[in-house]
Amino acid sequence: MIRSATAAQGAGVAPGAAVLTPDNRDQVLDLLTGALRTGVDVKVREDIYDAPRVTPEELRDLIVDDLPEGSVDAAAVVDEVRRRILPYCKNEASPRFAGFADTGADVAALAGAVLAVFAQQNLINQSFDSPSATFVDVAVLRWLRDLVGYANPPVGKVADVWDVGGVVTQGGTGSNAVAMMLAREHAGPGTMRDGVRDPGRFKLVVPAGIGHYSVKGALAWIGCGESLLEVPVSGYRYDLEALRRALRAHRGEVMGVVAYAGDSRTQTVDDLAAVHDVVRGQDPGIWLHADACWGLLCAFTDRLRHKIDGIELYDSITVDAHKVMEVPYTLSALLVRDPGVLRTITTYSDLIMRETFAFGQVTPFTGSRAWESLKLWAMMRARGRAGLAAMAEHRLDTVAAFSALVDTHPRLARLHDPDLTAVVFAYLPSGHDPARPDVERLNRVNRAIHDQVLREGRWHLHQFSLADGGRVAPGAEVWPLRFLGGNARTTADHLAELVGEVARLGRLHDTP
Amino acid sequence: MIRSATAAQGAGVAPGAAVLTPDNRDQVLDLLTGALRTGVDVKVREDIYDAPRVTPEELRDLIVDDLPEGSVDAAAVVDEVRRRILPYCKNEASPRFAGFADTGADVAALAGAVLAVFAQQNLINQSFDSPSATFVDVAVLRWLRDLVGYANPPVGKVADVWDVGGVVTQGGTGSNAVAMMLAREHAGPGTMRDGVRDPGRFKLVVPAGIGHYSVKGALAWIGCGESLLEVPVSGYRYDLEALRRALRAHRGEVMGVVAYAGDSRTQTVDDLAAVHDVVRGQDPGIWLHADACWGLLCAFTDRLRHKIDGIELYDSITVDAHKVMEVPYTLSALLVRDPGVLRTITTYSDLIMRETFAFGQVTPFTGSRAWESLKLWAMMRARGRAGLAAMAEHRLDTVAAFSALVDTHPRLARLHDPDLTAVVFAYLPSGHDPARPDVERLNRVNRAIHDQVLREGRWHLHQFSLADGGRVAPGAEVWPLRFLGGNARTTADHLAELVGEVARLGRLHDTP
Repeated sequence: MIRSATAAQGAGVAPGAAVLTPDNRDQVLDLLTGALRTGVDVKVREDIYDAPRVTPEELRDLIVDDLPEGSVDAAAVVDEVRRRILPYCKNEASPRFAGFADTGADVAALAGAVLAVFAQQNLINQSFDSPSATFVDVAVLRWLRDLVGYANPPVGKVADVWDVGGVVTQGGTGSNAVAMMLAREHAGPGTMRDGVRDPGRFKLVVPAGIGHYSVKGALAWIGCGESLLEVPVSGYRYDLEALRRALRAHRGEVMGVVAYAGDSRTQTVDDLAAVHDVVRGQDPGIWLHADACWGLLCAFTDRLRHKIDGIELYDSITVDAHKVMEVPYTLSALLVRDPGVLRTITTYSDLIMRETFAFGQVTPFTGSRAWESLKLWAMMRARGRAGLAAMAEHRLDTVAAFSALVDTHPRLARLHDPDLTAVVFAYLPSGHDPARPDVERLNRVNRAIHDQVLREGRWHLHQFSLADGGRVAPGAEVWPLRFLGGNARTTADHLAELVGEVARLGRLHDTP
Repeated sequence: MIRSATAAQGAGVAPGAAVLTPDNRDQVLDLLTGALRTGVDVKVREDIYDAPRVTPEELRDLIVDDLPEGSVDAAAVVDEVRRRILPYCKNEASPRFAGFADTGADVAALAGAVLAVFAQQNLINQSFDSPSATFVDVAVLRWLRDLVGYANPPVGKVADVWDVGGVVTQGGTGSNAVAMMLAREHAGPGTMRDGVRDPGRFKLVVPAGIGHYSVKGALAWIGCGESLLEVPVSGYRYDLEALRRALRAHRGEVMGVVAYAGDSRTQTVDDLAAVHDVVRGQDPGIWLHADACWGLLCAFTDRLRHKIDGIELYDSITVDAHKVMEVPYTLSALLVRDPGVLRTITTYSDLIMRETFAFGQVTPFTGSRAWESLKLWAMMRARGRAGLAAMAEHRLDTVAAFSALVDTHPRLARLHDPDLTAVVFAYLPSGHDPARPDVERLNRVNRAIHDQVLREGRWHLHQFSLADGGRVAPGAEVWPLRFLGGNARTTADHLAELVGEVARLGRLHDTP
């Protein structure tokens, strides 16, 4: 016999009867409030880590164990998370986490994320799984479209998901994969139905050395193979003449061109209008995709807006809110100039999607989908255009301040003039001469600095390989450091301390 | 000049200065605790909706508006969510939401979800983005592997992500898409690099009429086209002779066979061992995929375990925790028999994944990834094997109780003997004779019942088309109702009331 919920589940958070019910509401609320307080205190911590750094193998042996036989109280599990797991988590909201700024610390966004956990809407369909949440998706997508310069139809004309002009995805990689599928179907109509038959027709042009792995991955995932055409760059932007030559040489084989509004290394914003003109001049049928995961920031303030002029001419644009808008993981969107184009990659089922506003029809790789958009809706609602502008401008000020510290330091050099929030810089070994650089030594000391920064865990800087544009070791592959000015808690004192720390480590590791 | 965080951001949750800092910690905690209480009170509500049901267009006009110019307090935004949006959200934890049971109401899982929002780990890499969280993924994947009968290497032998044997994904659709990519690469090694050239070689066998849209979608997404081979079923299981014939007729063209451990309609568990034997007997090179989104439940209790015997012989298995384990959206996993096979679909970047435990290397369509596994870790840790068994057995009791009510009602009929938690049933119009059914009238009354149930919003039942197995209208396409017994709050009283309501609506709509 089944028992009533009261009899079976009502005795607080008892072992084995661990679902939230009206009867245990107060005890559960206490427990969850404690978890919430723990979470808040992780974020406000000045330190990145709450425990000494240990190796992956040590963490593996500490955490990975067998599923227990018996039940325990949920409170005991929360305590275990606090003790065994959380101390080793990074706190990206720390003002010393300076290589990325996925802080997830926007207050309204945090409230939205908490509400979304409990509301448990499923964006796969509108009618019974997310009646109002679907329109929070719609609102956010229209706000983002408006910011990048895509036209929105009047609200009353939005008759179905194909009038919205975008989809919420879990990240830039997912958004870019959807864009590549649109490009594939555009180059070969019917490919969704018939499959890929000639991957040589689905080549993708990317800027050499700064393309993001996601588009290369997407080509492999969607059956086009590794059909990348890498076009030379100059100053981390397309060499337009080389782009023209490549398109001419591969006429009829190029399905798309990707331009970066802030690449994933120096965050350089390409000359989007010029790239557009070159591509359209060669072949109006090529899909033009702008990856604005970072560059969305330009849409927030007039100080940056001109940098993305022309983005509204692109067929699709990826934006990534968790990268630049301090919302908790994850939230990205793919926006499309012509909303109706999403019809070309629709999937359909009578199971739960036979309705006009079911986003499940236009989200490849995704069926059930959590209500990620609420946190971004809350963030944008709270800040408004004025708040978004203030946020972007504060970051530009931080970047200017950090750049000035690097520029005035005798042993540091910037590798570029920042367009956005990234400052890529290097420690110069003693006796360094850009005309005759010891590249091996330059890279050795900067990699040693980065290794020690990560090992100590007091600061975080990012590192990657990059073709030097001519400032420290012209043309060479170098391994510089990257600062990212996206954290509102990073003060002038932090910046000065960070520069001092890099210089100290540089001296320490600068051995001939 | 940049200002200090204290000056710029410290004044509480002021407009335009809305990030969590040490200075506003107490005010923010108050605000978030209020949001948490709202969320808890949504879930403990008896009702599914907190407002009258309105049309999609009315919700669109109510919610979709322009991005405001000015900033407002986060508290005002939370109030707006409470007022304008939440009342229209479905509450799937309501004991009257009976067509699905994605309750998300497990207490430990809710605590895990809250902690994960604040911890803000990114599972794309281990070293700096999710040092310990990566091993929570590993632990959960190993627990799930153990439950389905896949062997795990000793913890100390897990040297990298390719020793884990699975990936956490956002849902069954994502898991199935990864499985299809594995099948594609297995059938055509090098396809990741070279692309699809002959989609006719990548056919997928599914059971006719009960296959899930996700695998059809996946084939279209990954470039194989709509290469489905639908094989006849009997009693919602493969007709094994027909399966053998199909494989023989398409020798060399079939990349994979999907078998359902609980299909998405009646939740019938196929004869997995027999399907395995037929497939392997025809062609040992065919990828065998088990979709156990629902059938994972069988792994929890000896009362069901025998139903999935043989699943451990399959090359890959999809499980879906948010469907059957009361964890908040979303959490699914793809498990693979041979862990090393994930190497065949690896993507790689030096940007942030050059390390042994970076899951970003083996999660197609996904780069940055939120810490979804913590909520499942917490749920399984709290319940243990004993608690999982108790949960599954309680559901079986609920299903038996509901089935008995249907069976004893003169105007209701079950369409199958439930394997799991679904009971598919129909209201029989007066004078109904299974030997000479009026299918149009049967469907009309059941669709009218379902329409009214959804329109009124007091209950939720699911509905879909199904080939009748011989109980109400042999061989015809019918539109029955589905009850799903997966909610711990659904009492015997609720079941009786629900059956009465269906019968009342049936009488109301039963017009000749």
